[in-house]
Amino acid sequence: MTEQAPTKVDMEKIVSLCQRRGFIFPSSEIYGGLSSCWDYGPLGVELKRNIKQAWWQAEVQERDDMVGLDASILMHPQTWEASGHLKGFSDPLVECKSCHLRWRADELAGSSCPSCSGELTEPRLFNLMFKTFMGPIEEEASVVYLRPETAQGMFVNFQNVLDTTRKRLPFGIAQIGKAFRNEITTGNFIFRSREFEQMEIEFFVKPGSDKEWFDYWLEERFNWYVKLGIKKGNLKLRQHMKRELAHYAKDCYDIEYLFPMGWAELEGIANRGDFDLVQHAKYSGKSLTYFDEETKEHVIPYIIEPSAGVDRSALAFLCDAYDEDIAEGELRVLLHLHPTLAPIKAAVLPLSRRDKLVALAKQIYTDLRQCWMVSYDDAQSIGRRYRRQDEIGTPFCITVDFQSLEDEQVTIRERDSMNQIRLPISALKTTLQAKLEGEDLFVLPPGGKIWKEGE
Amino acid sequence: MTEQAPTKVDMEKIVSLCQRRGFIFPSSEIYGGLSSCWDYGPLGVELKRNIKQAWWQAEVQERDDMVGLDASILMHPQTWEASGHLKGFSDPLVECKSCHLRWRADELAGSSCPSCSGELTEPRLFNLMFKTFMGPIEEEASVVYLRPETAQGMFVNFQNVLDTTRKRLPFGIAQIGKAFRNEITTGNFIFRSREFEQMEIEFFVKPGSDKEWFDYWLEERFNWYVKLGIKKGNLKLRQHMKRELAHYAKDCYDIEYLFPMGWAELEGIANRGDFDLVQHAKYSGKSLTYFDEETKEHVIPYIIEPSAGVDRSALAFLCDAYDEDIAEGELRVLLHLHPTLAPIKAAVLPLSRRDKLVALAKQIYTDLRQCWMVSYDDAQSIGRRYRRQDEIGTPFCITVDFQSLEDEQVTIRERDSMNQIRLPISALKTTLQAKLEGEDLFVLPPGGKIWKEGE
Repeated sequence: MTEQAPTKVDMEKIVSLCQRRGFIFPSSEIYGGLSSCWDYGPLGVELKRNIKQAWWQAEVQERDDMVGLDASILMHPQTWEASGHLKGFSDPLVECKSCHLRWRADELAGSSCPSCSGELTEPRLFNLMFKTFMGPIEEEASVVYLRPETAQGMFVNFQNVLDTTRKRLPFGIAQIGKAFRNEITTGNFIFRSREFEQMEIEFFVKPGSDKEWFDYWLEERFNWYVKLGIKKGNLKLRQHMKRELAHYAKDCYDIEYLFPMGWAELEGIANRGDFDLVQHAKYSGKSLTYFDEETKEHVIPYIIEPSAGVDRSALAFLCDAYDEDIAEGELRVLLHLHPTLAPIKAAVLPLSRRDKLVALAKQIYTDLRQCWMVSYDDAQSIGRRYRRQDEIGTPFCITVDFQSLEDEQVTIRERDSMNQIRLPISALKTTLQAKLEGEDLFVLPPGGKIWKEGE
Repeated sequence: MTEQAPTKVDMEKIVSLCQRRGFIFPSSEIYGGLSSCWDYGPLGVELKRNIKQAWWQAEVQERDDMVGLDASILMHPQTWEASGHLKGFSDPLVECKSCHLRWRADELAGSSCPSCSGELTEPRLFNLMFKTFMGPIEEEASVVYLRPETAQGMFVNFQNVLDTTRKRLPFGIAQIGKAFRNEITTGNFIFRSREFEQMEIEFFVKPGSDKEWFDYWLEERFNWYVKLGIKKGNLKLRQHMKRELAHYAKDCYDIEYLFPMGWAELEGIANRGDFDLVQHAKYSGKSLTYFDEETKEHVIPYIIEPSAGVDRSALAFLCDAYDEDIAEGELRVLLHLHPTLAPIKAAVLPLSRRDKLVALAKQIYTDLRQCWMVSYDDAQSIGRRYRRQDEIGTPFCITVDFQSLEDEQVTIRERDSMNQIRLPISALKTTLQAKLEGEDLFVLPPGGKIWKEGE
């Protein structure tokens, strides 16, 4: 039986679980870590892959009006002149004249150094783009930047996509990839890091229809998180105030999530107007217009941009899934991850290490691995093994016992309810398939029964 | 009917097809491109995703002895001291004293500038790592590098993986990700670029078993390419000569592919011995050993490293698939891509744009998109539409005609043979599924018939 424990999720528990079970490690940890960069371990990489795949499936594969793209991280420097990043993408910094520590001017309450109370310099703008040097010598001519957003790769390829896909407005370009920002203030685990991964859509529409499409994308993207299991009450839309709006934006909403440190941006959805195509046309000298067959006019499309973070999504899914209850009289930590996102879909657990049982269990395990990430665990008691799978969000445990050798049936146990059913091995694959795709978990086979773990 | 055309693949045709159909564009093309960086367009990104997914499925999901990882691109600088990259990862460069062009000393035949015949300087070592600056000011203390290989992310996480997964030797860590090398000599399209993507395995084994595992991985990786359709005759293994071996390698083979420009490395498989773990233990002061339960001894595992390039694989798969024949009296360009790799799995082609036909075709199209990347094409003659799909490697075309409205059947046409069968719409999904997974393409339903396109 399960009861609700009074404890709540906090960031420390999430970080600890991530490190302990191999979701996320500090980057280069054996060298003391690299400030605000993170490595995804064996479970984390599967979670991240599942998030990215769910996004690609929903926004590219299943849509008639979207195509994918994968642009390089290093782009021609003129891209950043046109986009405004070289001039505008800066934070005002001050330096302490005594201890030489640097601070963000807009985040300081007083006029003296928070560390030593020393006198501060005048604010100086500090560009957030990482720069590097391409070619044999470090000279100004060869300075290139790591992209601070994937978006620009889609703008500069607008004409290429138009020419090769014959898409008509409205249509979008979608991209998943790394971006880099030399942030002064980082933190909250993987929430704000210097290297991060984005899932961005640039959706091109006829001017005048932009308000309608903006509303459409707010709803579509909000619902994407809900469909994948985020509780509605932990999500909200927040419109940017005029003074918050980026230089390119006509309007912008954040989808915010109630992280352990409070409400914060999960995804930004902006109406960028025609800013980007106008700028790139101006700086490149190329025409970046769309010929409207109906009106026989060339138009500059408006752009709606839903821009999501893979890392922030991962953090939100982990926090939202985190739960503790009392099972079998002990504290149980579990992740209620949506089956689509769970790193491991099922675990095969032989009741003992006797040869015959192991042979059958391994055969089931090997067979299921053709379809999904599946794990095998034969160490310690069955209860401890269930707990280990609960803690990493595995939706189903498959127990192989001595009776399985007789009746060719196994027990499937469901993570959240701890309910169990017994099922022919021959029906295992199709049943798991259906249940992972959301079918009622305990549709019973004829003559089957349901009971709780521990009963 | 098809006949073999006498023409052969050359790089120019591949580049042209890639640009024309949206596989690969020069990066930031509207700004004149960025030297040897490339953007994957709508079809290219799907090809690349399919290659990476096939690799992950074979080497991680289906294996009991492998776990995944996704380490950050920016790593602690000491990583590169330990690995030897800061000292050793350099090319000798000379500069022309007249025209100031730079050349790789080891690639020059003579002692004068190939461009202006001027006098050359002494060779100078030039580090191939891209450097950048993390934090508010560009000072030596904050220099970090873009990783030149994903491998080091796996070495520095060896202990973390061991602690969190309880894996026993032999086991591997697999990773897919971007790497960057400031190459002096680039070229041959996406074969050698400054930004590229790797699929690397670091396989940890007991010392003494390394030779056996090295041989295993040579075979396993060679066969992976063959299973995905590369002709055996276009692949060969080439052992590195002693003087070619990298400083860390005990032995190394390249899997070479016969690219249009000749035999060149597709994947390198190295026996790295204990070099990496010894070095990182030394530089980090951490113990990076494995406790062998059988012998009760701490051992330093040896590492076998199969290191493949995503971009090179994409180029090899494209070149190997490229073909020309004569169909219906005209030149037909086609890509014999393996169904697993084909960017688009099927195209739905309504025979006319009449409402009723379009409604049925769109319904089929929408239904299939839930499972696969599928395209819809209603422009021009059916023959031209087949040619467009052949050219991008789509294995199946589904034609919806007026009879489909009566008998609820459609025609499936296969790319390579141009054979066609007629099939109930209700059987379409399961039939496509089976055929995409390799079932004999033309197992006929009862009463079905086969005929050739154009017959």
